[in-house]
Amino acid sequence: MTTSTALYTDRYELTMLAAALRDGTAARPCVFELFSRRLSGGRRFGVVAGTGRLLSLLREFRFGEDELRFLRDNDVVDAATLAYLEDYRFTGTIRGYREGELYFPGSPILTVEGSFADAVVLETLALSVLNHDSAVATAASRMSIAAGDRPLAEMGSRRAAEHSAVAAARAAYIAGFGATSNLEAGRRWGIPTMGTAAHSWTLLHDDEESAFRSQIEALGTATTLLVDTYDIRAGVELAIRVAGTSLGGVRIDSGDLPIVAAEVRAQLDELGATGTRITVTSDLDEYAIAALAASPVDAYGVGTSVVTGSGYPTASMVYKLVARQDAAGAWVPVAKASADKASKGGRKAAFRSLEHGTASAETIAVSAGFDEVDVPSEHPDARPLQVVLVEAGEIDTSFEGAEGTASARAHHLRVREELPIRALALSKSDPAIPTLWVDAV
Amino acid sequence: MTTSTALYTDRYELTMLAAALRDGTAARPCVFELFSRRLSGGRRFGVVAGTGRLLSLLREFRFGEDELRFLRDNDVVDAATLAYLEDYRFTGTIRGYREGELYFPGSPILTVEGSFADAVVLETLALSVLNHDSAVATAASRMSIAAGDRPLAEMGSRRAAEHSAVAAARAAYIAGFGATSNLEAGRRWGIPTMGTAAHSWTLLHDDEESAFRSQIEALGTATTLLVDTYDIRAGVELAIRVAGTSLGGVRIDSGDLPIVAAEVRAQLDELGATGTRITVTSDLDEYAIAALAASPVDAYGVGTSVVTGSGYPTASMVYKLVARQDAAGAWVPVAKASADKASKGGRKAAFRSLEHGTASAETIAVSAGFDEVDVPSEHPDARPLQVVLVEAGEIDTSFEGAEGTASARAHHLRVREELPIRALALSKSDPAIPTLWVDAV
Repeated sequence: MTTSTALYTDRYELTMLAAALRDGTAARPCVFELFSRRLSGGRRFGVVAGTGRLLSLLREFRFGEDELRFLRDNDVVDAATLAYLEDYRFTGTIRGYREGELYFPGSPILTVEGSFADAVVLETLALSVLNHDSAVATAASRMSIAAGDRPLAEMGSRRAAEHSAVAAARAAYIAGFGATSNLEAGRRWGIPTMGTAAHSWTLLHDDEESAFRSQIEALGTATTLLVDTYDIRAGVELAIRVAGTSLGGVRIDSGDLPIVAAEVRAQLDELGATGTRITVTSDLDEYAIAALAASPVDAYGVGTSVVTGSGYPTASMVYKLVARQDAAGAWVPVAKASADKASKGGRKAAFRSLEHGTASAETIAVSAGFDEVDVPSEHPDARPLQVVLVEAGEIDTSFEGAEGTASARAHHLRVREELPIRALALSKSDPAIPTLWVDAV
Repeated sequence: MTTSTALYTDRYELTMLAAALRDGTAARPCVFELFSRRLSGGRRFGVVAGTGRLLSLLREFRFGEDELRFLRDNDVVDAATLAYLEDYRFTGTIRGYREGELYFPGSPILTVEGSFADAVVLETLALSVLNHDSAVATAASRMSIAAGDRPLAEMGSRRAAEHSAVAAARAAYIAGFGATSNLEAGRRWGIPTMGTAAHSWTLLHDDEESAFRSQIEALGTATTLLVDTYDIRAGVELAIRVAGTSLGGVRIDSGDLPIVAAEVRAQLDELGATGTRITVTSDLDEYAIAALAASPVDAYGVGTSVVTGSGYPTASMVYKLVARQDAAGAWVPVAKASADKASKGGRKAAFRSLEHGTASAETIAVSAGFDEVDVPSEHPDARPLQVVLVEAGEIDTSFEGAEGTASARAHHLRVREELPIRALALSKSDPAIPTLWVDAV
């Protein structure tokens, strides 16, 4: 078992590196950009997530003996390339959107500056992390908006691969969820963990009453009892009989939720359990949550739909060479030109233009090379969107770990407030604000 | 950094364990079953994948100092439970479908036998692995059927979280793909790796000709040149001029593929490059592959759609208690009864019924407890579907690693041949064979 992330890489990155070391272009200063041409699924905004994870994975992007042996034994690259990789560490600079920031079509989410050799090998790792985490965060933010002030917990680990589940819990938390069922996410990122009980708990016991009684004895009356194993009405009645009217909550995991929630609320109130909360957890997504806004539901648990990006399990971000120096050291903006998938060459600087505090445009200034770009003069109150994440190989540690996760969440909740009202609707539409392209001054 | 997988677990599993240790039910012998009530997306069959990975992860499912400290510091469970977890290792038995096997609604994909304490804690890990890997394998198998004899490579790592990408490469390989771009999958599971070049390779150079020339010099004329950076027709002409008519292949990553492929084939033939192969890689899924069956395409590279399960990124498998002993030691079949999501109690044994070598039914025999179940007498030529994966805590290592992956792939390709013709169609429909429930004799 190794912790190197160096082989989370597509083979062609290393074979291009080998060819570039051979022809001398490996040393050319380059600017790669990670961006998305569109927002998936007619979403009105995207949420950047994964940046903090990526920085930690970048630290482990080293080719050790095991990695080099695999590459040598399988003739992936030649001896000169193996020698280069043995000493590889990223020594370039990465600027990017803060984690939790919103993005729109063309937003330069990451700008990776370095030699071709430095930067080309990071394509797969950077895209893997940001495409997955941003897809989850984008869906999660919509759910969090739909839930309003009601608590919202992520409990989809079982519907995502085991490591992705941890990353998804983190992305959902950044985008406004309040807790996760995933213990590893709690340990790794300091995310609050929660849970109730499964149907197996009730079925393990001789009857529902023994199950409820045992749970109350072990976990206290503040716990949440799952009441839909046999018959919901009987389950609720039994729950209050066993726990008393101070029971913390009941969970409903099946049935037609708006109807069932109203019935259960009425029944709880009749029984005097007016403070007992109702948590619902059955196949929720942002639409189902919105549809429950007028129902007497106190908390939501969301599984499958949040960890799979609610229909869009990956963002459509790409990693493209946008500028490089020629042999004489002059910067040349570059871009694929043919057919579809055309993109815009040149390094980008990005600003959120605001009018009276409300976002009005994603303003992107294009320059050829490494020049510093000021806030565009037409948009003097624009907010610069890029920060330095890695400078000459030094990773800014403040974006990592529990601290980075908490600050990404705070940043997201803050910048979401800048969105115009139409951004909050769930239906498919155009991006909430236009992308304005301007020339760098 | 730890390699323990013990916290890839939902919090409620440990709190149920705590309550069960307290009331004595933790020791009750139990049978949990992992199954799916339906096939996602109107698919006609599902493909089991992830079993080999799960067994390796199960070996690391131990609560070490770090895990126990987190649970203690966050008051997840009490001291008695911490003491139990400190010594935890799974000592039960797991039977299951062989990896690569087909599954249908109700198929008992895994049967986990042990005490409640032994088995309840594995719910999330088992579901995470099997739901993800099986979703990918199911989509991949359809693509592999659509591709027929043409080589098919998985290159979707950038559209899946970094660890899932490795698992997805493995699942796709098991389901019939021939190679992956992911180097870690090559190292870990012995899967053949492949790759061509990116648009950045061409853009790095002063012109397309220098890029092609350099690639040929470094990698030989058997390489595949990416010809759509500027203009495909000019790119193809240049590729053959630089490499000669023995050029291995050209890759097309954009445009209307049936039209473009035909044009490129005609152009290559005119230039005398009749042996130069055409690889296409632009947004393919099983439907696009099928639509290219009559086009002169030699190989497919599939990205996003295979790693995201082609619209169904997770299988809908669940992990349910289906039988347990009561206080007197008698077996009791159990199942959730209310509303939707009802399931069938009792331990299942599964057989693929065959008629003249063609699968005719998924025959599932139900018994209350641990009884051995014979091939049903009505289906004497039925093939038993379950094998022992873990016996009294001992993991069968033959299912793990490169060896297990290769044998899962061979098994899949073999059992796929048993399917009736209607199973191979891509449109949404019912499962290809019915599930027959019989009582165990």
